[in-house]
Amino acid sequence: MSEETTDKTVEQWGILELELPARVDGNPFVDVALSATFSLKHRAITVDGFCDGADAFRVRFMPDVPGEWQYTTHSDCPELDGKTGSFVCGPPGSGNHGPVRVEDTFHFAYADGTPYYQVGTTCYAWVHQGDALEEQTLETLKTAPFNKIRMCVFPKAYRYNDNEPEYYAYERNEAGEWDFARFNPEFWRHLEKRVGQLMELGIEADLILFHPYDRWGFAKMDAESDDRYLRYLVARLAAYRNVWWSLANEYDLMREKSMADWDRFFRVIQESDPYQRLRSVHNCRQFYDYGKPWVTHCSIQSSSLNRTREWRNTHRKPVVIDECRYEGNIEQGWGNISGQEIVHRFWLGTVGGGYVGHGETYIHPEDILWWSKGGVLHGESPARIAFLRQLVEDGPAMGFTPLKWRVPVPGVGKGDEYCLFYFGDSRPGEYTFRLPNEHQYRVELIDTWEMTITPLEGLYSGTFKIEMPSKTAMAVRMQKAEGNG
Amino acid sequence: MSEETTDKTVEQWGILELELPARVDGNPFVDVALSATFSLKHRAITVDGFCDGADAFRVRFMPDVPGEWQYTTHSDCPELDGKTGSFVCGPPGSGNHGPVRVEDTFHFAYADGTPYYQVGTTCYAWVHQGDALEEQTLETLKTAPFNKIRMCVFPKAYRYNDNEPEYYAYERNEAGEWDFARFNPEFWRHLEKRVGQLMELGIEADLILFHPYDRWGFAKMDAESDDRYLRYLVARLAAYRNVWWSLANEYDLMREKSMADWDRFFRVIQESDPYQRLRSVHNCRQFYDYGKPWVTHCSIQSSSLNRTREWRNTHRKPVVIDECRYEGNIEQGWGNISGQEIVHRFWLGTVGGGYVGHGETYIHPEDILWWSKGGVLHGESPARIAFLRQLVEDGPAMGFTPLKWRVPVPGVGKGDEYCLFYFGDSRPGEYTFRLPNEHQYRVELIDTWEMTITPLEGLYSGTFKIEMPSKTAMAVRMQKAEGNG
Repeated sequence: MSEETTDKTVEQWGILELELPARVDGNPFVDVALSATFSLKHRAITVDGFCDGADAFRVRFMPDVPGEWQYTTHSDCPELDGKTGSFVCGPPGSGNHGPVRVEDTFHFAYADGTPYYQVGTTCYAWVHQGDALEEQTLETLKTAPFNKIRMCVFPKAYRYNDNEPEYYAYERNEAGEWDFARFNPEFWRHLEKRVGQLMELGIEADLILFHPYDRWGFAKMDAESDDRYLRYLVARLAAYRNVWWSLANEYDLMREKSMADWDRFFRVIQESDPYQRLRSVHNCRQFYDYGKPWVTHCSIQSSSLNRTREWRNTHRKPVVIDECRYEGNIEQGWGNISGQEIVHRFWLGTVGGGYVGHGETYIHPEDILWWSKGGVLHGESPARIAFLRQLVEDGPAMGFTPLKWRVPVPGVGKGDEYCLFYFGDSRPGEYTFRLPNEHQYRVELIDTWEMTITPLEGLYSGTFKIEMPSKTAMAVRMQKAEGNG
Repeated sequence: MSEETTDKTVEQWGILELELPARVDGNPFVDVALSATFSLKHRAITVDGFCDGADAFRVRFMPDVPGEWQYTTHSDCPELDGKTGSFVCGPPGSGNHGPVRVEDTFHFAYADGTPYYQVGTTCYAWVHQGDALEEQTLETLKTAPFNKIRMCVFPKAYRYNDNEPEYYAYERNEAGEWDFARFNPEFWRHLEKRVGQLMELGIEADLILFHPYDRWGFAKMDAESDDRYLRYLVARLAAYRNVWWSLANEYDLMREKSMADWDRFFRVIQESDPYQRLRSVHNCRQFYDYGKPWVTHCSIQSSSLNRTREWRNTHRKPVVIDECRYEGNIEQGWGNISGQEIVHRFWLGTVGGGYVGHGETYIHPEDILWWSKGGVLHGESPARIAFLRQLVEDGPAMGFTPLKWRVPVPGVGKGDEYCLFYFGDSRPGEYTFRLPNEHQYRVELIDTWEMTITPLEGLYSGTFKIEMPSKTAMAVRMQKAEGNG
């Protein structure tokens, strides 16, 4: 039994990685069991390790409280068994708020309590495009308004997606077929590198584990291979604090999988993941039953953003509308709405008490469409989404709740302190608000497209009428004036 | 028994009116039964007469075939009974196509076979505004694109509708209360004059018989009064070939009426109306059951114009979306959408195989909003609605049928001859059509807002791609080229 003390101090919610060399006969990906128990005082957490190629094994762990942690490895391979050691977990680094979790039924927050207001985008296959484009995508994300990205583990075969990926998740056997029992460490290291870079940018990686747009066979593996894949994925990636598990994109288009398969996938992940990262699954036509206990939030494809409040009430979980059609001009209806329309949808989802996702699909001479490959953004919506994000972040902590006041315009807010009304395609020339009399409010007119905030003079209370500009996409923000009520 | 031969030749689908003076004791509106049987050879049609004030009785009849008609009156009042006579029905005058009826399950046509493509508007209380404004409304209608107008028999009490009408349908009793057994002939003559003027303009009068926006008590009459009202109305107005019976506006907001009342109203009208004019009823939240046999067509309030095809399939009757929100800028959401939005809704309804209605609600210094009072039109939509009407009229006879071709854009057409696709909020930069190979088509790009039709060069067949302008509200028209296939 060997003991090792690492000098390295790992930050809270950072990654401690154990490197464990061992010569193994047979297939090290399936023939070796490896785990490690990390403990701090009487608390112990056992996590699975994984084979990272010939003779190389690793265990990754995300410590969630500062202090001195101990570990012991367990394996049926004597070389890997009984390794012990300790390391110190220090305070989190700048910008590290920990993993995102569900807060207050309908919202999200980082582990340190900072609210997380999901503003998603979609670049399904961005990690399969080669370094030049992938780095450009990361560069774009640095200044884009998005704090979550939906991305597939497996490559994508679909219109505008004809290129082969640089790496594959599996090795091929001698017959040239995929060997679903032998993972390709290069693929996984590349994926982890990109996930880690997103983490540094403060962007959650909504990892899509399965999807139907496949020409390689990854959508048609047998159940044993599927489960092995999931466990390997979780062992490698769960320690990244920015990982979310999206079991599929358009799960209901994957004909080879039954509902029992999807339920089992959730269960396998739930069993394997020591951190209980956020879990959901994205639909094409039919929602998965978000009421099932292993689902942490809704991940919705729908154009009916006005149903957001209904979905909250039905599922009693955070509502993320990950796909509501994309800004662009391709043939497909899901990818050719205007910037105005997708911004309108972001606002509808927001005032319904939910969170919305962006995508962009402009025809490109080299088929570099943001929605799938990343690159640069061309659309008009990101600036307006940034404006909305800023408004939300300037709002009350921990998200908006649909208003219970009887105002016939959708609105969100927090108690009597704050309210935000969105008029959408209604464009009144004047509007009468009927609010409670108890408080006085500062009132601002917001042009969601022009990104202007115009304060109205004076304070308002009870029933009052304001002039409005007979324009679409206007919002009104009311904040309780200090020093009254 | 007296015999009279009128010299007057009545045009086909015109009105023959018998004037029958008689001194009657008591209440001539309820104490006298009067009808007349009109016959041509072996065909006989009995219609009810009505009291038109002191000592004045009338019977109105719309002859529907040319020839010499005979008539005999029937009454329990000897002075009115047994009057006989004849008149000649001649050919219809210019612009007179007869009454509109249902054609081919989902469409309408005039009695002479001319297709009637419903393009409605709404001026609920226009006949209660006094001559100056009413004549201005008629002047506006002369050049407006509308061939149907929704209008209430009773006056309207609602926001922007504070004025008293000039005429009331009833006399008051000595206590100053309405006497629902004594009609006010002045009111009715005025209404008939306006209906007749609409008829001259070729505009159908969709008469709304009840509505909830009432401060006079006309929405709360007892059942006997309701039925008397309906029979009197039918006796007076059914002979006008442009009359439709709309049993209510927002029937489901009339708390005093039960579903049994609505069913009875339909039955009373169906029994009384010799011509079986079109009958429907308009909802607020809940549709009346359009499947009931006395309903001739759907009269829908809804914003879900994309459900038009579903409503056709469900109800198997023509679908008229009479209210889909109005162009304007008032506070209420139903009256503040843009011209673009209502035109979009007209197109959605049209490519769903239905017919749509317009309304306009711009804030006006004297509260003259077209939707209720008429006057002049201020909006941007009527010109585009006229453009759409012209396109429809230029299309295949007797209306559009949703296409069965597997094209993911809503389209209507007629067999393989003609198709019209509408892209709505989809704004592709290019589009691939996959049509049958058998025929060649002329293809035109239509900008529904700019009202332009741009023919593409050449002929197209089978699978082909066209360039499109990445703009919303575009349509594509395809017409089979002559001389092929």
